[in-house]
Amino acid sequence: MAKSSHREKILSVGMEVVHRHGFAGASVRDIVKAAGVPQGSFTNHFVSKEAFGLEVIDLYYANALKTMAETLRNEELPPLQRLRAYIDRTKERLIRNEMRNGCLFGNFAAEASEVSEPIRQRLVEVFDEVQAAVAHCLRAAVKAGEVSPSLDCDETAAFIVSSLQGANLMTKTLRSTVPVERFKEILFSSILRHTGSA
Amino acid sequence: MAKSSHREKILSVGMEVVHRHGFAGASVRDIVKAAGVPQGSFTNHFVSKEAFGLEVIDLYYANALKTMAETLRNEELPPLQRLRAYIDRTKERLIRNEMRNGCLFGNFAAEASEVSEPIRQRLVEVFDEVQAAVAHCLRAAVKAGEVSPSLDCDETAAFIVSSLQGANLMTKTLRSTVPVERFKEILFSSILRHTGSA
Repeated sequence: MAKSSHREKILSVGMEVVHRHGFAGASVRDIVKAAGVPQGSFTNHFVSKEAFGLEVIDLYYANALKTMAETLRNEELPPLQRLRAYIDRTKERLIRNEMRNGCLFGNFAAEASEVSEPIRQRLVEVFDEVQAAVAHCLRAAVKAGEVSPSLDCDETAAFIVSSLQGANLMTKTLRSTVPVERFKEILFSSILRHTGSA
Repeated sequence: MAKSSHREKILSVGMEVVHRHGFAGASVRDIVKAAGVPQGSFTNHFVSKEAFGLEVIDLYYANALKTMAETLRNEELPPLQRLRAYIDRTKERLIRNEMRNGCLFGNFAAEASEVSEPIRQRLVEVFDEVQAAVAHCLRAAVKAGEVSPSLDCDETAAFIVSSLQGANLMTKTLRSTVPVERFKEILFSSILRHTGSA
């Protein structure tokens, strides 16, 4: 019988295994072993490794949504402070994994977007939604007079999502949070610097 | 007997297979099959898959060095034009692979830097050398009066290498070169904009 507790265990522990070792690098055997469930449980709950991968992305995305609600979409904070908090949360997440794992979305993008079209499409949706939250925050910053009204919020948001992915990747490679700190510094001192009257 | 022609074939064809399918995703069987050599050839020439991976990185890096010599370190071009040419070459490379493969260094960083310490260290060296070439180009731009003398060339170079990795990754995910074009536009219109007298 398929135990639903096994399903949750495979997903939550499996997400960590995939985050650390990569999607191709984490075998089904590794995942069930780490979750402490019988090997057959995996096939009881997931029709394929790709189906499991899609659910791992959704589980990680649920955490990302929570972070975005508390930062980028948190109307109680001044807009640019929300963006700073979002980048700081990214950094804290990297530190929690000893700067070894990077961003799960970025890792999937690097290794699985060519192999699985459903995974690639899901990642496109995820990045679009993160970008929309950043753009929402930037529009609030324009409205509050924190950045120049001439800022192209959508283009800048897409640039932020992309560059932050690069900083995640470099953090993982260098085992140092300097790339994220540098990104934040250059973003606020140059790209978002308000040269207007405010 | 170990044929040296097999070695070269395994490396050059294997680099393409790894670039497309990832390091973990490309099995030794896939590699020798694509190279059209006997399975035993691989173990004749490479003590491990990790040793093969390190040589793949070196082969790709030889191409990168050539590109850097023709662009970032090409003293015959005005400095910022060298940087533009370097980014354009990145874009051309992505288009050649139908925007499916991204940067081989970035892919290795995402999936293998946690698994193999020698691979991670080699990537750190590679990124350092690319960053040094970008910084060299930026210092020439300062000297030529193309950018502000207050520009921190080393920090900006590190930011460019990191953000370009992100743009490579997004290009691969979206199957569009827009992320690289957007990065170039924001880099030149904002971060490198000369607000001084020149």
